[in-house]
Amino acid sequence: MTTTAHLATDPATPAVRVQPGIPFRLADIDPSNTEPFSRHKKKLLERQRELRKQLSDYQVNLHAEHRRSLLLVFQAMDTGGKDGTIRVLLTGVNPAGIEVAAFKQPSAEELDHDFLWRIHQHTPGKGRIGVFNRSHYEDVLITRVHGLIQPITWQQHYQDIINFEQLLTRSGTRVIKFFLYISKEEQAKRLQARLDDPKKRWKFEPADLKERSLWDSYQVAYQEALAATSTLDSPWYIIPANSKRARDLAIAEIVVAALADMNPQPPAATFDVAAQVIK
Amino acid sequence: MTTTAHLATDPATPAVRVQPGIPFRLADIDPSNTEPFSRHKKKLLERQRELRKQLSDYQVNLHAEHRRSLLLVFQAMDTGGKDGTIRVLLTGVNPAGIEVAAFKQPSAEELDHDFLWRIHQHTPGKGRIGVFNRSHYEDVLITRVHGLIQPITWQQHYQDIINFEQLLTRSGTRVIKFFLYISKEEQAKRLQARLDDPKKRWKFEPADLKERSLWDSYQVAYQEALAATSTLDSPWYIIPANSKRARDLAIAEIVVAALADMNPQPPAATFDVAAQVIK
Repeated sequence: MTTTAHLATDPATPAVRVQPGIPFRLADIDPSNTEPFSRHKKKLLERQRELRKQLSDYQVNLHAEHRRSLLLVFQAMDTGGKDGTIRVLLTGVNPAGIEVAAFKQPSAEELDHDFLWRIHQHTPGKGRIGVFNRSHYEDVLITRVHGLIQPITWQQHYQDIINFEQLLTRSGTRVIKFFLYISKEEQAKRLQARLDDPKKRWKFEPADLKERSLWDSYQVAYQEALAATSTLDSPWYIIPANSKRARDLAIAEIVVAALADMNPQPPAATFDVAAQVIK
Repeated sequence: MTTTAHLATDPATPAVRVQPGIPFRLADIDPSNTEPFSRHKKKLLERQRELRKQLSDYQVNLHAEHRRSLLLVFQAMDTGGKDGTIRVLLTGVNPAGIEVAAFKQPSAEELDHDFLWRIHQHTPGKGRIGVFNRSHYEDVLITRVHGLIQPITWQQHYQDIINFEQLLTRSGTRVIKFFLYISKEEQAKRLQARLDDPKKRWKFEPADLKERSLWDSYQVAYQEALAATSTLDSPWYIIPANSKRARDLAIAEIVVAALADMNPQPPAATFDVAAQVIK
């Protein structure tokens, strides 16, 4: 039996932080929730600008410090808003300090290795912000829903993922994971919009409808994977994402709060500054 | 208190398989041991040829099967024989099925990532045999001996290594690790030979003597690391390596035995063979 009582909602956002190892039901979370954000569009946009400036400043210090890094993982159902979220979040941040990796259908070479092999190659180096558009979590979601793996395999994958993210954490990479959570009705609207708008039609594929027919299986797979792999060091946030504005603001708040906690600082000079003479 | 009683010696070779988690002393192992190998050089060479043929055949089947892989890790003190061992072992095996990765001083980009990042990029794909000349173990050996890391760090690295090798094992990669164990006196002879022989002199660096002065610290670091990271799935073998011939034969025996246990098989045809008409 599950209740929402244990679901931690971040006081400043509509986001839900998943408690390590505690089962929950996605159905208990409202994907249209925008509380406690004000309804005043102007205030939200103002706050978004503030956060963007802070994110940009933190990135400069993270780069100068050259000691730690930040990895943001984004997962969602089709039309959940991964591309848009990443674009809005990173607008105004120096692209040289950022690496966005989009993980598609694995290549033959990638399939020849363990499921974390291709992921590991894209983890951010010191001083950098890495962003994953889809990720290693596809290997406990799509593969599971399509019956390509057995329960024992996804259980082992959970442990492999926890171990892998622990490795990253120990080497100075802060890992934060976002599930952009939309309703099935919202997806219907967005898919229809893609079909109706010739400029968006390229984003639509008939295969999307097959995935949509597996909606309930995906919800179960997400529920379980998030509960199994959310840790204190590397938490999962469920972002109510029917409202794009609330979604973007919630993510910006969480990312900036994490950077504030990391508090990167430019290093002190390692040489005698007074002794340097520029002729 | 440690004894040699728990040290498993492989019946067919002078090698010692390290028992998971059980402390031992390298000093209790004789690096000149060649038993139970016959002293008859001719018989040893004959057996080496047999094993080479078997290894070559297994590699063909491993490639055809395209389902699993083999990773051989070699560690040793300077002059311990890594290059020579690898050359002798792989002579006669199709080079297209083999990837040898030599890990040197990490680059700036590599140092910007966790210590397993650069390693993971070189793990063998399905159907392949990977060979590591030095490895991720340098990060619990050289870094420790030179005081570059704290005890908590190498303890965590042990766990990270076990987790990493478990990930590989789960994805079908058999991992076998060899420590080529020579005596301090043998190293003196081999270093002197490098200095004396103009054709070998390029292998000598004055820094080797600094490393030699840390011999005892390295022995302690090896002892601990091997006991901490030898697992049933992915064992460490200590190879008495003062005798090159016994060393090479022991390794060939162990590698071929592992492949025999894996028993790779070419896959059956997935199409109706009788229906194929070549016009």
